[in-house]
Amino acid sequence: MERSNIPAAVVGRLPRYYRYLGELIENGVGRISSDRLSELMGVTASQIRQDLNHFGGFGQQGYGYNTSYLYQEIGELLGLNDRYDMILIGAGNLGEALAAFINGSRLNQRFIAAFDINEELFGRYISDVPVLSMQELKDFTQKHSVSIAVLAVPGPAAADAAAQLAGCRIRAVWNFTNAELELPEDILVEDVHLMDSMRKLTYGIHARNLKGVKDHDAD
Amino acid sequence: MERSNIPAAVVGRLPRYYRYLGELIENGVGRISSDRLSELMGVTASQIRQDLNHFGGFGQQGYGYNTSYLYQEIGELLGLNDRYDMILIGAGNLGEALAAFINGSRLNQRFIAAFDINEELFGRYISDVPVLSMQELKDFTQKHSVSIAVLAVPGPAAADAAAQLAGCRIRAVWNFTNAELELPEDILVEDVHLMDSMRKLTYGIHARNLKGVKDHDAD
Repeated sequence: MERSNIPAAVVGRLPRYYRYLGELIENGVGRISSDRLSELMGVTASQIRQDLNHFGGFGQQGYGYNTSYLYQEIGELLGLNDRYDMILIGAGNLGEALAAFINGSRLNQRFIAAFDINEELFGRYISDVPVLSMQELKDFTQKHSVSIAVLAVPGPAAADAAAQLAGCRIRAVWNFTNAELELPEDILVEDVHLMDSMRKLTYGIHARNLKGVKDHDAD
Repeated sequence: MERSNIPAAVVGRLPRYYRYLGELIENGVGRISSDRLSELMGVTASQIRQDLNHFGGFGQQGYGYNTSYLYQEIGELLGLNDRYDMILIGAGNLGEALAAFINGSRLNQRFIAAFDINEELFGRYISDVPVLSMQELKDFTQKHSVSIAVLAVPGPAAADAAAQLAGCRIRAVWNFTNAELELPEDILVEDVHLMDSMRKLTYGIHARNLKGVKDHDAD
């Protein structure tokens, strides 16, 4: 099977395998059976064998998987060994936070520029990332090989920013706004709805409070 | 139906309704039919009616939903009008980023303290949040009403931190590490696997590159 044809559901599970394998390696585990991995990860051993079969030849009956080899191969497959230059759209609170986090890490991904509409920010740096005008965006992506645009503008500005990104030479958008973006098919989109995530938590706490009150009333 | 008994699947969709309703209100839309909302959100009108029926009495046949009323009610239901005090576990790059983002926002959630194991950080502030020692954690949660602990430690430290949080008086953990946490049932957990999310993107770009090379070879 062509690696580029691996089903999306399997791809979605790869980062989790990668993470577990990394932890096993850190703990000095050189080989692991699908049964043991199944216990650790809480998925069936048959699913693990099916998933990892897409890459062929990793597991050997009775020997288990070689963790380092599998880790490296999945890393290669996920493109983690490539370098990806990123740009930041929106140099506000969240953008600044992301710049500090990403450029302060040892990832192969780095911000090389940030863009904003606020003139006061032009020429400044957030972490080590220069802030440019949104008017320079398209030109910048023509001149530099930008893989990922990270969208961190306020919600109401997301549609405008997406429209501008649609005309740029970029490969993907990592969307931290709560908006659902309209972009051409050749631009990948990955959403991180932080506020939705927090709202699930606050709802859960709130619902338990109500339930607690009700249970108490029933005493 | 008791609001605390709304199915988890519906609850999971509420933040999205909330977000769309907020945008409609910003755009001056006072009423909306389930058909129009269906087009906007890309879900069936019948699903929308079923979901919103859990709250009762919002929609009227032929009149549509009152956006402001629905927004307010869902906000109330999600607990967005309550104040939630949070603590930060891990005052590194990511923690600092989250402190700046959350405490710089107009949310009802705020960090009131951060905890770390690095002595050099004790007594410092990140944004307006004081950094304390992890040894003070349990005591702090006894004295303050902490709703959410935000976990932003390096992956290998996550299990230890979770074990300490398990003994604390908190309601929920917002987990920004890539680890899957073991916590008592009465502590809610919401995961934000940022690195998994980025890996899906880099994999997508990588896979398209391979495909592009293959297509080119086939010419």
